Amino acid sequence: MRNDDPERFGATYRVRADGREIQARAQALALEQSIEMPLAAVTQDFVRDRVVARVASILPAGEGTFDVTLSFATRTTGLEAGQLLNMLFGNCSLQPDVELRAFEPDRELLQALPGPRFGLDGWRRALGLQGAAARPLTCTALKPQGQSPQQLAELAATFALAGIDVIKDDHGIADQEYARFAPRVAAIQKAIRGAAASGRRALYAPTLSGGPRRLREQLRVARDEGVGAVLVCPMLCGVPTLVELVREEAGVPILAHPAFAGNVRIAPDLLLGRLFRLFGADATIFPNFAGRFSYDRATCLAIADRARENLGHVPPILPVPAGGMATERVDEMIRQFGNDVMLLIGGHLLAGAVTPGDSVLARAAAFVERVRQGGALTH
Amino acid sequence: MRNDDPERFGATYRVRADGREIQARAQALALEQSIEMPLAAVTQDFVRDRVVARVASILPAGEGTFDVTLSFATRTTGLEAGQLLNMLFGNCSLQPDVELRAFEPDRELLQALPGPRFGLDGWRRALGLQGAAARPLTCTALKPQGQSPQQLAELAATFALAGIDVIKDDHGIADQEYARFAPRVAAIQKAIRGAAASGRRALYAPTLSGGPRRLREQLRVARDEGVGAVLVCPMLCGVPTLVELVREEAGVPILAHPAFAGNVRIAPDLLLGRLFRLFGADATIFPNFAGRFSYDRATCLAIADRARENLGHVPPILPVPAGGMATERVDEMIRQFGNDVMLLIGGHLLAGAVTPGDSVLARAAAFVERVRQGGALTH
Repeated sequence: MRNDDPERFGATYRVRADGREIQARAQALALEQSIEMPLAAVTQDFVRDRVVARVASILPAGEGTFDVTLSFATRTTGLEAGQLLNMLFGNCSLQPDVELRAFEPDRELLQALPGPRFGLDGWRRALGLQGAAARPLTCTALKPQGQSPQQLAELAATFALAGIDVIKDDHGIADQEYARFAPRVAAIQKAIRGAAASGRRALYAPTLSGGPRRLREQLRVARDEGVGAVLVCPMLCGVPTLVELVREEAGVPILAHPAFAGNVRIAPDLLLGRLFRLFGADATIFPNFAGRFSYDRATCLAIADRARENLGHVPPILPVPAGGMATERVDEMIRQFGNDVMLLIGGHLLAGAVTPGDSVLARAAAFVERVRQGGALTH
Repeated sequence: MRNDDPERFGATYRVRADGREIQARAQALALEQSIEMPLAAVTQDFVRDRVVARVASILPAGEGTFDVTLSFATRTTGLEAGQLLNMLFGNCSLQPDVELRAFEPDRELLQALPGPRFGLDGWRRALGLQGAAARPLTCTALKPQGQSPQQLAELAATFALAGIDVIKDDHGIADQEYARFAPRVAAIQKAIRGAAASGRRALYAPTLSGGPRRLREQLRVARDEGVGAVLVCPMLCGVPTLVELVREEAGVPILAHPAFAGNVRIAPDLLLGRLFRLFGADATIFPNFAGRFSYDRATCLAIADRARENLGHVPPILPVPAGGMATERVDEMIRQFGNDVMLLIGGHLLAGAVTPGDSVLARAAAFVERVRQGGALTH
């Protein structure tokens, strides 16, 4: 790095290449991701010295792969989240020999990216838990889609009575004819507030979806009804829309859902852990290992690390392991992830083995109780 | 399909599975993509009959893979593009054994999705070419980023004088400090208009980037300056934002760029050809075979087919092969793609072999001339 050009950030790619070609491949990647033309055709010193990405290091990564770290000029991002993604993985997303593995923001980007407004502590404050012994938060999902607002509201009341902390819409519950956003959110928030009268406090997180006009209208409804959180799928709504619209106008913690984010050739800990955090999520849902999805244990722990590790002034956020979890796994999940976690059990609360006395209420209450005991045990 | 439930659409997934497990895997996929819970736990007839996705067919696809076609209830999309993507590939994007290969919209979705406002014919009309013998359109990119508005404007004037039809910003030219959107667009559009006075007509397509507020402001600048097209990266700005904001407010043809689109396991012809078309793109850029990217010939021809084939009332759009193309390939590209195509040559016009008399102007003019002759030859 040159003294006259202090603001650069690093990104590391796992590149599949022959050892004799990796130097040229790395240099081509640096050009592809910055100026998209041959260096020989650049006539301006400013572009060559201050704009082009540079190859900072090339390290063997085993089995015909290399870890190539590029140094990017921060100014090429325009300090905007969408253009940052473009610089990191715009064109080379189309090149199957390249995976994005790591991104190390410089100070200027860290200042410019919004980060979480509430973060881990914000969830506890919103739930009135900041004075209590730290325990994991509990979360569940209203499902299936296709139910009426009243049916969903009854389910929400049941979960709230059981003591679940955060009750979210299934991410497939959008703005369909059978449960339009406005009447649904009103009915569910009313039901949760009714349960709160019995001493339980719960946050409802409705799913936001659609383009900017719809989102703005949905955020208005959410504010008017006094909902305590929102759920958003950053890869569906678009990262710039998360940053500039949802985070700015929600006024409550944001739960990020990984729909459409998978199977990207971006390391899950980077995308779901670090980037979603930098883009404004206050909690990040990910498919936990040994569930319906394929992430392994190390990947899941890395996501949680990226969500909570020190990162300049950026507050930590809650990792939310999910995807086929059940109450039987609560103790193990707390051992894995600690108490600064939100445990999400969805379908299993609706579809557990039915025994005498069993019910959604009983199963949800058992989940809540298990977390309280497990959280206390590890405290 | 049942008579009482006419509106369903189909989607086909390539699934890697053991033959003994494919039935269960297909059924699990249908649930994952619709209600995300076990069917046994569904208590409402409406959900079971009218909301859950069904397995329509399972066909062997060779080498331990199967093509699983699901039938989705159209109402689950809420007739909104982002939620359609969620239904098609939200959760299963996280499952590496699944690729989305095809999507067959029903009549209701075809009506609801915006489609291109201008399409293939719209580009010819805007360029005053509708009466002329059909020839491919020519396109180039202003690059590299890092240049000032005035430097970019001089380059644009050169391209316009050479007779290039569509002059776009490099997709990495966003809203950086060295060439802010408003002064850049004003300078470049003025330069192109100056060249037009000499009898050439050209369209400038500036890159739109950022969240909804920035986009709306950029669209206002573009309208005020009278630019003839816009460039947008749907996977960076978010599909709902393309549909609801860019397409509604641009008022000029939209050129879609595939940045960040290569990282999902969706077949390129479906994503870049069919879906971008349905979401409002009037032309779709893709990395042509034997360039800097890895798509093969069949994939590229399939993208062009999806862009131009009959699809209800939806107008065809222009395929735009790109990514390391050169004038030497013009004849071959016209043979491959025909005359209803926009040929994009970027860096090669700036970095061709420098011989006496060679210049950007000469190289651009040679490209234009080659297309005119090649287009005439195949006509």
